[in-house]
Parts: sequence; structure tokens; C-alpha cells
Amino acid sequence: LALKSKALVRQVIGIDRDISTLEQALQLGVIDVACNDLKDAMVDADLVLLAAPVAQTESILRSIYPYLSQRTIVTDVGSTKCDVIAAAKRALNDKIAQFVPAHPIAGRAVHGPQAALATLFSGKYVVVTPLAENSSGAINYVANLWRQCEATVQVLEPLHHDRIFASVSHLPHLLAYAMVNHITDHADAFDYFKYAASGFRDFTRIASSSPEMWRDIALANSDALLEELNAYQGQLRQIIEALQQRHGDRLLSLFSKAQTARQDWLLTHQRVDNDGESV
Amino acid sequence: LALKSKALVRQVIGIDRDISTLEQALQLGVIDVACNDLKDAMVDADLVLLAAPVAQTESILRSIYPYLSQRTIVTDVGSTKCDVIAAAKRALNDKIAQFVPAHPIAGRAVHGPQAALATLFSGKYVVVTPLAENSSGAINYVANLWRQCEATVQVLEPLHHDRIFASVSHLPHLLAYAMVNHITDHADAFDYFKYAASGFRDFTRIASSSPEMWRDIALANSDALLEELNAYQGQLRQIIEALQQRHGDRLLSLFSKAQTARQDWLLTHQRVDNDGESV
Repeated sequence: LALKSKALVRQVIGIDRDISTLEQALQLGVIDVACNDLKDAMVDADLVLLAAPVAQTESILRSIYPYLSQRTIVTDVGSTKCDVIAAAKRALNDKIAQFVPAHPIAGRAVHGPQAALATLFSGKYVVVTPLAENSSGAINYVANLWRQCEATVQVLEPLHHDRIFASVSHLPHLLAYAMVNHITDHADAFDYFKYAASGFRDFTRIASSSPEMWRDIALANSDALLEELNAYQGQLRQIIEALQQRHGDRLLSLFSKAQTARQDWLLTHQRVDNDGESV
Repeated sequence: LALKSKALVRQVIGIDRDISTLEQALQLGVIDVACNDLKDAMVDADLVLLAAPVAQTESILRSIYPYLSQRTIVTDVGSTKCDVIAAAKRALNDKIAQFVPAHPIAGRAVHGPQAALATLFSGKYVVVTPLAENSSGAINYVANLWRQCEATVQVLEPLHHDRIFASVSHLPHLLAYAMVNHITDHADAFDYFKYAASGFRDFTRIASSSPEMWRDIALANSDALLEELNAYQGQLRQIIEALQQRHGDRLLSLFSKAQTARQDWLLTHQRVDNDGESV
């Protein structure tokens, strides 16, 4: 939609497992053509953009392999990169040089064609984790498309990517799901939900994300994520110990450290509005 | 500010430990008069509204006690109620009937006079936890003032209040502080913060809250909060075990349960905009 809004694509062909999703995308102008025949869709394609839960990468790439001509570049938007690359190598084999792995750092808790925004990537990072097999032409082609969407392209090693996102993205998603389940499991959960307010709303916003997508991400990045969960439990134990000992100074120091670090993060990395909250 | 905007108060006298805060409040029209003499401020007061970190309740109420005339009602906005009531009983002694404990369920991560909004309480709950000693006149007086601010008044037992808010408010604040500290404690934290995006931003928004205020709340409600932290750790262990066993169905079921419960909560308890996200 971002490329279409800038008239940088001739024709967008949509393929989906769900026919009603395709119809909706067509109505909304997110795609120009709905297609259920991979062979037809692949003819003369400049680019294949794979956007599906990461565990489906291998089977989807296997299904396009027979129709993948030399002139077509394949990229993805998966939140994990090591497993996606391993799957791509198995599926694309001798055509692996045509696959340029990427991850736009932008998303919404709502999903589906009606959640598409042409401006979603503006001012956001897109991480590209190139393969040794990729030509610089292929890498630049994908990077430039993202730049046209007003994103800033960054290059990372796949393993470094996966560790960073296990920490800043995958971990909070799991913690938010756990928080909602924690409230739900109270005997009188309705009373609890009744008084949940804006703090709870923001904290759990990412718990509205697709369970299927996040199951796949969690499994794909389980090693890094288990390390992060372990370290996070250590942070919780520090707070619990300070609370058990009624150690006010220790609590104040832990909370102040976090508040200061977050304010620094807002100033350094996020656009900030007049309220001091990022927009 | 809400009552002033409706012309329901003649004069608001502000008292604060910080003179620059008072000056700011005066400039912004949040208060009409800045005062540093409690005795003067208390003469002919209809209402004293105590808004300070909860651990200061006892000393503040002790300091106003000598000047508290029979016609003045005292209320508070503290996030915990059992400890506030205990402090009030110690400090106000024979005048305890004049103290009506309350807790507006509305707030912002930003604070200070510049963060004041006349509309903050509109459509929000205010929990009143009356004392056996309160006259119905005193209770109704406080409840009606909140209703004039367009809030919905609810009555709860203090202990029930503290358990509910330990779960839906105090716990997520501690978890958010822990999340920011978890990122900060990485050796290459800058790289991690660089890629933290909107999910992290919303999840940690409450970690921008006042460390002093939250130290006091955590200590004041430590018994209920430690129970909640313990139960939350149990939720985390369920996710960790499913991840260790690479049990996709179990992860999907945990995430789906949370997503469904959150969607139900949005529909039942929150105003929802066109994106399906509450406003």
C-alpha cells in the first residue's frame, strides 16, 4: 500500500489462504488482483513479498520454487531471521541468492487488510539481514523499496537481530499475554477487568496481537527468548526481594533507574509530543 | 481543574512542598491562591483534597488536624486504601468521621501541574471506600463532587479495593519497570533500545510514572502485591514450560486465551474506536 500510494508498483497480486481476506484487500485497493494460482502469479514478478506467520516460510517458499524465475527477488517481513533463513535455504536451494531476508520494525496490534496503512513504515527502521549468497543488486533492490516507503534501512547479522528482538519485542508480547491470563484466572475476574484502566490498556495492547503469529515467533526464537525470560525473572526477583524486605530505598532506586532509562529512550529514539510521551 | 471548569468552586488554595510547582499551578490557573501556611489555608475550607504519595498521608493529616474545623470534609486520591485509612485513623483520631477515602481510576504517566486535564475523570470510575464513622452526608458530598467531574462513583470495601488494584494496576507498573531495567542491563543496551518500537513503548508507558509515588504504593500494598507477583510468576512458568517443550498447541492456547479475554474486555469495559483499539 505504501508503494502503491507512491505509484511505484504496476500491479500487486495478492495470494492468501483465506478467500475473504483477499476480497477485502481487493475492495480496499491494497491489491490489484486476487489470485489462487501460484504459477500465474509468479510469471514476470519483480518481487515476491512473503508476509505470513514465520513457521509457514518453508512450505510457502517450497511452493513457489518451481515457478521462481531468475529475474524475481523474494523477501519477507518475518520477526525472526535465523529460522526464516534456515527454512529459505532448505526450500529455495540453488535459488537462495534470490532471497533477501528483511524485518520492518513497525506493526499494529490490529491485523488484516483493513489494518493496512500506507504510512506505517514512515520514519521506522527496516532491518535487512543479507545472505552471503545475495548479490549487492538484490540487497539494494529490497533496501531501496523500503526506503521508498520512508523507512530507514539497517543491516544486522541474523543472530544479533534475533537476540535484540527476543528482548525488546518478543519478551514483552509474552509478558502481556501472561498479564491478561493472570487477571482472567482470578475467581472474580469480572470485578478485576471492570477496574482495569489506561495503564492496563497500554501494557496489554500487544496481547491483542495474533496468537498464531506469536506462537510461531516464540517457537522460532525460543533459545534467545528463554534466555530473556530467565533474565527477566531475575529482574522480578530483585523487586520481590526489596518488597519482602520492605526496602523502600531499593524499590525507589529500581523504579528510578527504569524511569530515567525510559525517558532517555524517548528522547533519543522516539518522536516526542508535548506531553513528553512518544507519539 | 475539572470543578473549576464547571464553576463549582469559589477558590482553590494550593499547598505543595515544592514552591516552583505552586507557581506553575498558579500560572496555569489550576489553583487560585498559593499558600504556605496550613492554618490560613484551612480557615473556612469546605474540602481538603489530599493528593500526595500515600506514605505521606499520616504526616500531612497530622499537620492539618489542629486546624480542621467541624465543617470541613477531607478526602484523598490515593491508589491504596487500607494503609491510607489506618494512617488517617492515627492522625485524625476523634475527627476521623470527616475523612472520606477515595481513589479516582484515572491518571497519566506524565505528572505535575502542566499534566492537569479538566476532562481527565470524565467517563472514569472513582472508587469510594467509606468508613463506618462517615456520615452519609459526608460520603454523598465527596461522591457528588466526583460525579460533577463526570465520573462514575463505585463503593468498595478497602481490602477488596486493594486486592483488585494490586492486580490490575500495581502489578503491571512493577512489571513495566522491570522490563525497562531488563533492557538497560544488557551489555549493549543502546542497540536494544534503538530497535525498541511501538509495542515496547506502550508496554512500558507506565514505567515513566513517578518512582516515589510507586515506591509508596508498592510498600503500602505489599501483601496483596506479593501475592499477585507470585501468581504472575506462575503464568510465566506456564509459558516457559511450553516453550522449553516446544509445545506449539499449548502456546497457541495460552496466547489465544489472553487475546480473546482482552478483546472481551475492550468491548465490555472500554470505549473502542474504529481500529478495535480503545481510545
